[in-house]
Formats: sequence, structure tokens, C-alpha cells
Amino acid sequence: MFTVEFKNSDQQPLYIQLYSAVKELILKGALKEGEKLPSKRSLSAHLKISVITVENAYGQLLDEGYIRSKAGSGYYVEKLPRASRALPAHASPKEELQASAPQKTPNYPYNFSTKGTDTRSFPFSVWRKLSRQVLSLPPEELLAPCPSGGVMALRCAIAEYLEDFRALKVDPRQIIVGAGSEYLLGLIIQLLGRSRTYGIEDPGYHKVSAIFKEHGAPCVAIPLDRQGACPDSKNLPDVLHITPAHHFPTGICMPAGRRREVLALMEESGGYIIEDDYDSEFRYKGQIIPTLAAGDRRGRVIYLSTFTKLLAPSMRISYMILPPALLEEYNKRLSFYACTVPVFEQLTLAAFIKEGYFERHINRMKKLYKKRRDALISFIERSPLSSFCKIEGAEAGLHLLLRVSNGMEEQELVTRAKAQGVFLSALGDYRLHGTAPEKTHRPAVILGYTSIDEECIAQSIKKLEKAWIV
Amino acid sequence: MFTVEFKNSDQQPLYIQLYSAVKELILKGALKEGEKLPSKRSLSAHLKISVITVENAYGQLLDEGYIRSKAGSGYYVEKLPRASRALPAHASPKEELQASAPQKTPNYPYNFSTKGTDTRSFPFSVWRKLSRQVLSLPPEELLAPCPSGGVMALRCAIAEYLEDFRALKVDPRQIIVGAGSEYLLGLIIQLLGRSRTYGIEDPGYHKVSAIFKEHGAPCVAIPLDRQGACPDSKNLPDVLHITPAHHFPTGICMPAGRRREVLALMEESGGYIIEDDYDSEFRYKGQIIPTLAAGDRRGRVIYLSTFTKLLAPSMRISYMILPPALLEEYNKRLSFYACTVPVFEQLTLAAFIKEGYFERHINRMKKLYKKRRDALISFIERSPLSSFCKIEGAEAGLHLLLRVSNGMEEQELVTRAKAQGVFLSALGDYRLHGTAPEKTHRPAVILGYTSIDEECIAQSIKKLEKAWIV
Repeated sequence: MFTVEFKNSDQQPLYIQLYSAVKELILKGALKEGEKLPSKRSLSAHLKISVITVENAYGQLLDEGYIRSKAGSGYYVEKLPRASRALPAHASPKEELQASAPQKTPNYPYNFSTKGTDTRSFPFSVWRKLSRQVLSLPPEELLAPCPSGGVMALRCAIAEYLEDFRALKVDPRQIIVGAGSEYLLGLIIQLLGRSRTYGIEDPGYHKVSAIFKEHGAPCVAIPLDRQGACPDSKNLPDVLHITPAHHFPTGICMPAGRRREVLALMEESGGYIIEDDYDSEFRYKGQIIPTLAAGDRRGRVIYLSTFTKLLAPSMRISYMILPPALLEEYNKRLSFYACTVPVFEQLTLAAFIKEGYFERHINRMKKLYKKRRDALISFIERSPLSSFCKIEGAEAGLHLLLRVSNGMEEQELVTRAKAQGVFLSALGDYRLHGTAPEKTHRPAVILGYTSIDEECIAQSIKKLEKAWIV
Repeated sequence: MFTVEFKNSDQQPLYIQLYSAVKELILKGALKEGEKLPSKRSLSAHLKISVITVENAYGQLLDEGYIRSKAGSGYYVEKLPRASRALPAHASPKEELQASAPQKTPNYPYNFSTKGTDTRSFPFSVWRKLSRQVLSLPPEELLAPCPSGGVMALRCAIAEYLEDFRALKVDPRQIIVGAGSEYLLGLIIQLLGRSRTYGIEDPGYHKVSAIFKEHGAPCVAIPLDRQGACPDSKNLPDVLHITPAHHFPTGICMPAGRRREVLALMEESGGYIIEDDYDSEFRYKGQIIPTLAAGDRRGRVIYLSTFTKLLAPSMRISYMILPPALLEEYNKRLSFYACTVPVFEQLTLAAFIKEGYFERHINRMKKLYKKRRDALISFIERSPLSSFCKIEGAEAGLHLLLRVSNGMEEQELVTRAKAQGVFLSALGDYRLHGTAPEKTHRPAVILGYTSIDEECIAQSIKKLEKAWIV
């Protein structure tokens, strides 16, 4: 049986190290096509690692077509993957892993991707402790069916949190917990129906338009100005999906005046606003601006928020707050749906919030991200880049926008940055299909700072200088 | 502060006991309107129970309108609930709890509801042990984002299980894991689109028709004969949703001949079959009949199954198997959706399956349910009921159908049974809206046996004699 040397110093999880080692053996021919791999159990015993670690590594190899499974018999080395699936031989294992991941996050030395969360900072030992406590509850409490809207303990914890931190008073019964905002958007479409038109921000988060499209809900693009979404009062959609706290990707925070205008417009027309508050916890300057939902007196706002950005992508817990009339409609028509989040996770998160860990975690992350953001801004400002780059939308959230006026188009900016090892995305990538940028449009790129290490920021700016100053 | 005496002998969870005690104090006026309740923490210390137990009890009281929460201040006794929400004063606490639950399972002394699972038999200590093991994995493995289709370790475990127990060979990559069959049906509708017509069994499981309706997918009713779904070859829908292993609610198991016919029809028309295999593990007579998916050579069958019926309703884990062309379509269009099941639950279930616990659990439950089913059948057969009652659909699943020819209509049968404390449902309740029973229809009722205790069966039959023999 082959042996793998694990490096403790290595940042990579064991299963990725194992996956890389086995793949290398296959690629260099030490493990030949058709050869049988050791069973998971025997390999786990041999390497003194858990069976699940071996399973994850084998699963990844299987997923990428390096091995195949013959049920009841074991795992065998596959013919090398088809050219179309094969990756360049020089690619690092981590790069390949991510290239095969569903949400292809690129792996560049300087990564300004807007995806992901800095999970290294997640207080996992606390989460583990709370999880163990919840596991010790009587089985009836963990195994009993859960109300469609979620476990009451969690909904109460969220309500208290919202009152304290978002100045938003709601009855816990208005809160509907679900497995991710994507799922909840689907529920909202079922609740409001497909005979309404949905206005979505352009540019905007592309998953949102994909979800509306896949659900057969008719969409119209809502243009933005400097104050954010700017719906045409003569041509209003029935429902408006907006991100007023921190628009994705421009970073615009909708000022109070515009919020009142938009709310008044939708009140008059009898429409609804879906207020997607996906990263509003991270505000670095000035007061927290109250949510639209907090000013909603006529039940026109559906508030949507998620814990994924705050905890980890592997935990899908989001929630929406329905105004009373829509809640009644939900209870009548849609509460036959079982809650999609396991009771176990709901109770653990409830304890995490109630016992103050959530607040502390947010504060810690806010500090951490603020430091990165401040470093990023100060390095840009002190760099020659500052003569043609302007920072926008940096007051909140987890990304900022850089307007670049050096004569290059957005795609050229991105390609040249990539050639220097810097990943970032173009504003244009977030335009809805088929819409053209306004005439006054200046090229812009998006810099997310959840994945980049603080120590890399100075260097990344040097790389951008090389890329963009010619 | 008030004190509650908990009964260990009581089958009821602590939080229900606490909820009942507090509610009684409110109802009899010992706790008065506007009075402040003890804080959760102090009550938990006082009664020596966990804070979560108090939270669950308070949450339930809140949900039912017995108390209200004032954020930052605590919980107060509410005005008694509005008449519309109030329940009869003589109702037992458990009955009230369930009446306010989203899926109103009635609480009769003799409960033949088809909902629910016998969670008392769930090997929770094993699940707890495996959960703890998974919690000890390196955080990176638990916090990393998960492929859209689910964690590979779980998909491999399911593939091996299907090969061993359902004679179904699939590539683990064809398996898409999701938070419940309801959610996955929504994904299937997004995958196949709303321009197709969907045929659903009539009678059938009402949630299925509700899901298609709420997703805006056009539905047509497919009638049944003695062999199950019987689609009209001249008027085929584009997609057929069927439960061939054990039709709900009639219990019909579709014979091999009809399966071949239906598959051939859909192959010819280029349509799809959604094979919903929701309780096929429970087959008491004869061989397991191969799934339609196992005989599908042309990629026309989407196989859908769930762990909820086998484990517990609080764990929402289901999966579907997509034929290769649809998988490609899924990967292209829908894999932007994050997997809705937390990685933690997926890894725990993977270990539960891989280490043989799942198989043992099924075998144990099969024995337990078979004993109940055999008792039920033998008591019916030995009762005077047998002169006018005929059992159907009892070879598999978790319920059977009773044709009753004593001159009473279905609703009368149900009402009279309820008056004797026996809960069961009428076949007619499962007809699609607006369709009439066929002319040859004989009244029938459905008896589920997941919730009834074996010791109660003899008595329940005596009660049915009183109800139906006049």
C-alpha cells in the first residue's frame, strides 16, 4: 500500500493532501489504469486518519474522474479523464480542486473574489461545544417535526437580535427560517406568484436573476444611479428586489431619502419590496441606517437575510420576515412545506445567538474585515494607481468598487490583473443579460476582501500597478 | 416563582410538560394578564432543566398567543387568545399542541394517521455518537462549501446502498441531495420547465399536487386502476409523477407488466417519469420489485427518495437521481444553487449508512411495522367487520386501505370512527380537487400504522365495530 506524508504545517486539510498525493501517483503512472485502490478502511488504518477523510479524498477523485467505484468491490484507477475535463498538468492541486468545485472560485495568489467567507476565523470550538450540548437534549426534542417557519427558539433569538442590532421589531412568528436565501426567494415567488413582474437591480447579483428566471417569474431590469436602485415611477414593477444596505456589486448604500421615496412608491402602487440585507452587519462608517422593513407601516416589505456570510457556506440558514397579510397567506397556502433546516442546526444557532457568541463573532469579523479594507484603501491611495483609480462603495460590506480611468476596457483590466496573479471581477459581469452600460459608464472592477490575507494586500497593489500602468 | 413537577414516567418531552403547566396556570388565572414570567435563565436554574427546554416551552406559548415577548424586557402573559384561535377548554395539552402544529396530526386514542414516523425506535444514541465523531473532524472539512449535489461521501454511500438494496446502479455524481423531497420536486420543475404538462396520480398525495400548483406547473390527473397509474396512451402528459412501489393512498404496488408499459409509453413519447419511491423499504411479501429507474435504458426516469420516513421528520434529507442528459442540464443551469443540507448532517448520515446502522435500523423498523400490520390484519379478519370490510394494498409501505361496504359513505365512516376515538382518513380526501370518484367506487378508508401502539390495535377494532355496525 502507498504511504502519504502529511504536513502539519500545511494549511491544507488532510483530505486535500491525500487527494493530491493519490492523484499524483495516478498522473505519474505509479498507480495504473484499472489498478485497485486500497479500501477506505484499510487505508484509513494504514495512514492513521479517519475513514471520512479517506472518503472525502476518494470522493473528490471520483468526482474528477480519476477513479471509478465498482459497488461491492471497491475503487479502481480510471482511464485518465477526457481532454475536456483534464486540467493543465502544472496546475496546483488546490487550483484543480477549486476548478472542479461547483462555484469555481479561482485560486490566484492575490484573490479579490467576492465569494466565500473567511472561515478560518469562525469560532468552531464554541460551535462544537454548543452542538454537543444540543446533541445531549432528549431525543424527542431533536426528532420532533418542526413548524414550517422554523423552531421557535431560533425565531425568538433572531427577533431579539434584529431588535438590538437592526432596530427592527418583529413578532417571531413573522420569521420564516429556510435553507438559504436562494430557497427563500423561491418561496417568495411561490407566495407572490408569477403573474407579477419583478424588478431586479442592474447591475446586480447574478444568482438573483437566475432564480427568478428558473422559477418562471417575469423580470425587468431596474437601473441604478448614485443613490442605488432608481425605479421609474411611471413604469413600476409589482415587486422590487433591492439591496439597499450595500448594493452588490457597486457597494452603494441607499440614502434615507431614496429609501423613503422607494417605499412610498411601492406603498402607493400596492406593490412589494424584497429587501435583501445580505451583508449589512458590516458597516464601517457612520450610523447603521435603519432597514426599509423598520419603516414599513403598510406591510409592503419582505425582509430577507442570511447567516451564511457570517458563519460558513456549509451551513445554509437564512430567514425572511413576512408582513402580517403575507404571513397569513403563507400559513394558508405554503405552510404545508416542511422547514428545510434541520432542528439540530436551528437549536445550535439559537444557542450561539442567545449566549452572545454571534454578536462577538460579528464584532471580531467586522474588525478583521475593517483592517483589511483600511489596508486596501490606504495602499491604493498611496499608490500611483490613485491618479486614475477611484474607490467607491467602501463604507460597508465585504467588497469595494474601483473605477479605473487609464483608457483600458474592463475585460482588459481583469485579464492584465490575472496575468499578474491578481483575481478580480469586472462590473460588467454583473449586468443583466442584454443590457448595455449607461453612456457615462466608466470601467470598474470589484475587489472582495473576504479571501485575501492582509499581508498580501500591499503586494497585490504592486501587481496591479504592473498590470495597469503601461 | 412557580414550580413544575416533571413526570419521568410521562412519555411527553420536558418542554411539553412545562408548556402545559404554564398554560394551565394562565388558564386558571394563577398567572394573570400582563404578569411577567420568570426569565428563561432563572426558570431553567430553578427547575434544573436546560435553557433550551424553557425556550421551546415559551416559544410554543408564544406561538399560540398565551404569552408575548417584549424585547429586552422579557415575557408577559397575553390577553387570552382570540376566540378564533382558542381551543376547547377540555382539550388535553398535547391535543392543543398538535392542533397548533403546522401539520395538524390529530390526537385520538386510536391514531391511524398516515403522517409521522415512529421516532421512539430511532437509534438516537448511535446517531449522537456518529454526530460527535463528525464534529471532531477538522473544521475545514465541516466549513468548506459543499458541491451543489451534496457531499461526495454521502452520495457514494447512497449509491452503494441503492445497488445492494434496490438493485439500482448509479454513478454517485447522478445523485443530487436536497433538504426534502418537496424541495427536490421544486428543482425538478425548474429543470423540466413549466411548458410541460405534469401527470399526477388521482387519488394521490396532496402535497404533490400543491407543489406543482404553487410552482405554476400545469397538471393533469392520471386515473388509477387495480394495477396503479393508468395513463391514456393517446393523451399522455409530458411528465408523469408516480409512486409505483406503493401508491399513496391506495397501497397498490404496480406490477412489472404495467411498469414496462408505462416506461415504454414515456420512452416513445420522449417524456419523463418521476418515480417517487417514498417508502419502498417496507415490503412485507414477496420479492422487492425492481425500480423503474433500474430498467430505464433511455434516461427517462428521475428517481426520487427520502430518508425522512426512515429516520425522523426533523432531518430533511432526500435525494434524486438524474439520468445523464438531465444531469448535464442540471450542471449547466441549476448547479449555481448551493446544496440545502448542512455538511454536518450529510457526513453523519454517510457514516450511519456506511457503518451498517442504516440497514439494521430499516430491518428493525420493518419487523416492528410488520408486527403491527399483521396484528391489524388479523384483528380485522377475526372481527365481524370482515363480513363487509376488505383489506387492500397491505403488501408494503406503512398504511393499508379498507374498502367498507356497509352502506355508509366515506365521510360517515370517518365521523363515526372519530366519535369512538379512532382517527383515520377517507380515500376521497386524496382525490385531486374537482375530480369525482369512478362509478364503481366503493367507500374506503386509509389506516396508517406508524403512530399506533400495537397494544391498542385490538381495542381500536372493537371501536370500529361499534362505529360501523348499527
